[in-house]
Amino acid sequence: MTFHRMWAELLPVGRNPASGGYRRYAWTGADTDCRAWFRDQAEARGLAYEEDRNANQWAWLGDPAAGNAVVTGSHLDSVPDGGAFDGPLGVVSAFAALDELRARGARFTRPLAVVNFGDEEGARFGLACVGSRLTAGHLTREQAHRLTDGDGITLPRAMAAAGHDPDTLGPDPERLDRIGAYVELHVEQGRALDLSGDPVGIASAIWPHGRWRYDFRGEANHAGTTRLADRRDPMLPYAETVLAARREAGLARAVATFGKVAVEPNGVNAVPSLVRGWLDSRAADQESLDAVVTGIEKAAREYAEAHGVDLTVARESFTPVVEFDHALRDELTRILGDRTATSSTATSSTATSGTETSRTAASSTAARRPASSRTAVNPAGLKVPVLGTGAGHDAGILAARIPTAMLFVRNPTGVSHSPAESATEDDCVAGVRALADVLEGLACP
Amino acid sequence: MTFHRMWAELLPVGRNPASGGYRRYAWTGADTDCRAWFRDQAEARGLAYEEDRNANQWAWLGDPAAGNAVVTGSHLDSVPDGGAFDGPLGVVSAFAALDELRARGARFTRPLAVVNFGDEEGARFGLACVGSRLTAGHLTREQAHRLTDGDGITLPRAMAAAGHDPDTLGPDPERLDRIGAYVELHVEQGRALDLSGDPVGIASAIWPHGRWRYDFRGEANHAGTTRLADRRDPMLPYAETVLAARREAGLARAVATFGKVAVEPNGVNAVPSLVRGWLDSRAADQESLDAVVTGIEKAAREYAEAHGVDLTVARESFTPVVEFDHALRDELTRILGDRTATSSTATSSTATSGTETSRTAASSTAARRPASSRTAVNPAGLKVPVLGTGAGHDAGILAARIPTAMLFVRNPTGVSHSPAESATEDDCVAGVRALADVLEGLACP
Repeated sequence: MTFHRMWAELLPVGRNPASGGYRRYAWTGADTDCRAWFRDQAEARGLAYEEDRNANQWAWLGDPAAGNAVVTGSHLDSVPDGGAFDGPLGVVSAFAALDELRARGARFTRPLAVVNFGDEEGARFGLACVGSRLTAGHLTREQAHRLTDGDGITLPRAMAAAGHDPDTLGPDPERLDRIGAYVELHVEQGRALDLSGDPVGIASAIWPHGRWRYDFRGEANHAGTTRLADRRDPMLPYAETVLAARREAGLARAVATFGKVAVEPNGVNAVPSLVRGWLDSRAADQESLDAVVTGIEKAAREYAEAHGVDLTVARESFTPVVEFDHALRDELTRILGDRTATSSTATSSTATSGTETSRTAASSTAARRPASSRTAVNPAGLKVPVLGTGAGHDAGILAARIPTAMLFVRNPTGVSHSPAESATEDDCVAGVRALADVLEGLACP
Repeated sequence: MTFHRMWAELLPVGRNPASGGYRRYAWTGADTDCRAWFRDQAEARGLAYEEDRNANQWAWLGDPAAGNAVVTGSHLDSVPDGGAFDGPLGVVSAFAALDELRARGARFTRPLAVVNFGDEEGARFGLACVGSRLTAGHLTREQAHRLTDGDGITLPRAMAAAGHDPDTLGPDPERLDRIGAYVELHVEQGRALDLSGDPVGIASAIWPHGRWRYDFRGEANHAGTTRLADRRDPMLPYAETVLAARREAGLARAVATFGKVAVEPNGVNAVPSLVRGWLDSRAADQESLDAVVTGIEKAAREYAEAHGVDLTVARESFTPVVEFDHALRDELTRILGDRTATSSTATSSTATSGTETSRTAASSTAARRPASSRTAVNPAGLKVPVLGTGAGHDAGILAARIPTAMLFVRNPTGVSHSPAESATEDDCVAGVRALADVLEGLACP
């Protein structure tokens, strides 16, 4: 299967040997290498390669101008020391699914494209989904031009240094108007599929979520000579707020995390002048999220005041709940459900590089599954689970403009944004097959 | 007074315009500029300039080989965004005191030197007092060569880049054997003199103190999709430990501070894999310090275990209590006490650059003090206060080998290691006078 070869090609790019994680930040050398790989894949398949005004990459089969296109893909950038699957699994699976459909002899009645959206993780400039936000008109060129990384380099300067024109950034409604459906495959970032025993699932909705910056400002001082009573130490209310966030999230069955901190002056023998912590919080519905965020801020203000520390809280980003298109979701459920009714999602553990398995072979019954397969059988045998997620995606951004859907591939530990993120080879192959079935159902009716 | 001109020359060097603080880290451009300034000062006064095997700078009046030298000075490097006074006040005051003694027509019977010890703050390589530790034999060349800054640059590479030979580093007993007394003037880093109403004080002892690195290791994960129950978030036990440190220090009338933190991967949407916090703790005696440090570690281990987080605690440095030489301290008390018996430590607010005040003029009575003077009169009128300090100094390192003493200059707010650190002009001038009196008393008997 071509999946394995592509996967092996991408694996070394941007890998940090110390952590085993990936550092594929937008418009860096690692990102440029990933993008060159994408272009090579497009050209090797005779697909029409193009880069849109926002530097997202497209590989077209058929004429985009015909409209009602079916598009699949994801992103190739990473969070700091992220895993190998988050993003790349969707892009690699997209090319592999196209290969499988060609091997099946599929006849396409709609244009098909594979896409790589730029800067999805926002690891460098602090804003996620920059490529899709620009395309959907949720981010203006002026706003994008003001984005600055930790070294003070602006997004336009970074793009120009990587060989892209930052002056063309902006909304792309004509492009979106030509797309009839966007389906993004992604490794699951929780344990729902592991708990249900399914290799593949369909997304229902993305939880509302936001990021808030807490600036606790006190007074820098000598850690050895300043009496406790004379201190205005911002580390103390920060610590109390971290614990409050956990408490509030637990009460609302939500999540709240302080995962990023910046301290000034950050000296071992100095009481800090500033502790800046970023809160990420998400919940199943808006009401729960409001309760968590309000509760944390109220507690933080009390703690700050008690320590003589100033607190400012700034909402840096917010995304309301995203319900994926119901009709498209039902279509995916029907396509994958029909398939599970006549065949399992079984995959052979003998499927390796260069071994193309025909559709007939894939239609083996569960009874013929090799004993070495690690793919659990969905106990129901017929249903594909539909699940919500707390993670943001380009599909969530585009959902406001075009019908979008997502497929998730099981992640045995649920670990995400970490080198320990994983998916078994069998589940990856099951994901490719499911995506191929979906694309065939949509584009080859 | 030459003090003001020298002070004005140093003020812009290494100043961070954003914070108003100083970033004079060892072997950087700002440090090199400070060192060039020191050499210029030595040569402008006809003093014999030399750099010792550990790149500490010396300016000699008289022949060092004669032995029993009186040495004064401090350091010119800074903590991150530190104040202007910590270190430079001692070096500038040393040159200014020498100028004053020459103006007084003092006749020296012992060699005299001004010294600038390298890398006192340890801001770059994490170990304080590197220059004096090497000289005293408390740090070997091999240990020094392994020191590495946050960018992975080793101390020898940094020294070589700044034009110094790192292969000569090592103990310098012959040099120390030629020194009869080391007196370091330093801005006070607490509020004892402000509370007692004295411009100048004498050090009794340096509290025992140490630095411990706490590594809380959990599991990186997606902040949006990982259930609270599935997390091993090291930020939580870190936060609880910060609060425990404050509690334990309060109980023991000591200080304990987490002022430096490093988080991995430090992404807004990632549960951290690692939170590394540095504890700085000091107390008046060893028993109290042990109680604080033991209490914090015990609490931290319980918190870490409760969150499924691994904890390692490493002591990075430790300095036992340092009692300054009693005979030298008594000598300083006598010299400054005799002076306060016959004159105040009064200083004229009209003392400005170029205005050399003769000793006779300085022997004005308190009644003749200008009304505009901001120097408070010691209520006792005769005694110079003797005080302990929680801060480490090169004088503390050298105290094990040679008689050392320290003078403190009042800091009205007690703020230290911060741009807000201060001393009034009058108090700085009072410090220079006191140091001149001490040097005259020791070297011109």
